[in-house]
Amino acid sequence: MTTIIAPSSSEEKILRMVKDEDVIYIGIDVKSFPNGELLARITDINRADDKILLYFPLFPDTNNNFVLLLQILEIIRYYKENSRLLVIIPYLSYSRQDRRFLMGEALSLKVILNSISQYNPSFLIFYDVHNISSVIKMSKTPFIHLSVIHEVFKRALYKLSIQPSNILLISPDKGREYVVKNLSKKFGCTYAIVSKVRDKISGEVTFSFTDIDMDGFDAVFIVDDEISTGGTMAGVARYVVQHGNHNVYALASHLLLVNNAEERLFKSGVKDIFGSDTIPRKYSIFSIFETFSWLIKSL
Amino acid sequence: MTTIIAPSSSEEKILRMVKDEDVIYIGIDVKSFPNGELLARITDINRADDKILLYFPLFPDTNNNFVLLLQILEIIRYYKENSRLLVIIPYLSYSRQDRRFLMGEALSLKVILNSISQYNPSFLIFYDVHNISSVIKMSKTPFIHLSVIHEVFKRALYKLSIQPSNILLISPDKGREYVVKNLSKKFGCTYAIVSKVRDKISGEVTFSFTDIDMDGFDAVFIVDDEISTGGTMAGVARYVVQHGNHNVYALASHLLLVNNAEERLFKSGVKDIFGSDTIPRKYSIFSIFETFSWLIKSL
Repeated sequence: MTTIIAPSSSEEKILRMVKDEDVIYIGIDVKSFPNGELLARITDINRADDKILLYFPLFPDTNNNFVLLLQILEIIRYYKENSRLLVIIPYLSYSRQDRRFLMGEALSLKVILNSISQYNPSFLIFYDVHNISSVIKMSKTPFIHLSVIHEVFKRALYKLSIQPSNILLISPDKGREYVVKNLSKKFGCTYAIVSKVRDKISGEVTFSFTDIDMDGFDAVFIVDDEISTGGTMAGVARYVVQHGNHNVYALASHLLLVNNAEERLFKSGVKDIFGSDTIPRKYSIFSIFETFSWLIKSL
Repeated sequence: MTTIIAPSSSEEKILRMVKDEDVIYIGIDVKSFPNGELLARITDINRADDKILLYFPLFPDTNNNFVLLLQILEIIRYYKENSRLLVIIPYLSYSRQDRRFLMGEALSLKVILNSISQYNPSFLIFYDVHNISSVIKMSKTPFIHLSVIHEVFKRALYKLSIQPSNILLISPDKGREYVVKNLSKKFGCTYAIVSKVRDKISGEVTFSFTDIDMDGFDAVFIVDDEISTGGTMAGVARYVVQHGNHNVYALASHLLLVNNAEERLFKSGVKDIFGSDTIPRKYSIFSIFETFSWLIKSL
């Protein structure tokens, strides 16, 4: 039997998704002290079997949740030293700080991965990390990398009733090129790349577009791994609208949507936003809990 | 030559205190991203010598600062792999969670210590940790433990112009007994113990006092390792005042003073608060920077 350990807030959703599996669910309690310290507790940890699936989102409130994740791993390892432990981190925070962009900077992604590896999880599950090759280099723990962008794309197509052949996919930077390329190959749509150059000091972003006829398509999907403040997406969307296509949509695996990202996107001409629930939002059209049955079997 | 790495906010204070030493000072920059992630940078890290003293307070904003501390250690180890590295953590956060008070709880202190040890500091410096024997058990890194409560006591005596023989020291729980015992032996004052019982579930505190004539002393000093919300201190102070001594003072190494601790203490009859600047407050009468020259020499 598999034990799923997860925050109480996700109990219902998880149990609905894995109802055909032989699992028990155990919740996590969190106590906050007046001095800002946090304390995780898994009251029922002794009920856990030796196959444990831990689901623990880091976003939002990332640094507090990171401290809690380490505490939860410590609890599991203390009470279930030799359990087979699969850790699902739906959105891998700090994944964009995967190299030292400037002299003297921390390699934060490595700090996160190393700290987690201290507790010897059997393996980690990540969804659409920013740069998979950096995680391959840094992670001391074996991991499974799942991509949900194909599912998000399929469901967006279905919702909008558009044929993939009438869609232009745009990648807002070189790093995502392989994603739109793969989607295009698999579904038979066209793709274009936008090169984004970010000034390392000021953070200012400039775009350079490939020469393509924007208004020759029923819709334009801008595809990225995440939408944070939506600045990049909004910049690309404005360009698309200015070049004659008003059916522009934002697609991403992770919908951080911080500050006024939604307003910014809609103002720039984006008609809708689509993503997964690695971060639950009203725009989440694919649930990663659909992958849980498969993950339980792989334990 | 020794390199001191510390937040820019403490540069002036540190340099004033170590002015006779052969040191260079290097600051730490911190960037906050809209998604809540933080990034530490030590621009001048290449200027660092192979003897490094890192001063980094965790309180307040403990969990964010803990993530930053790990990043800073990562930077130092990347650029100065084999440096002799002394890490000063003035107030060791999570030091009260030094055992599992309830089934299934995290041992947070161990989590903090283990994470820091990943970066192989040469040794750690702590001031008046709550329970030194738990740190001895848990720390994989050698450490130096310094007590500042004697200095705080001496300066409080001087400020109030009271003879130690006319002072009653009270320890608000069994765990601090050795502190008031030592102070009494060294300075020739009297001491008493108050037993505090905290309900593990509700957190409610009840006291039981030793039988002593409270009004037979010029002043009563309640001595603890830290003052957080001031609840315990206030309870003891009220008892002292009710039993006829209105000259009651609160002494502690660490002045967290969260929520409305000051108001609570003064309302309960406490006349003044004395502590160190492991957490800088207007009541700090001893500066731990006075210990830095000695620490630099021990590097």
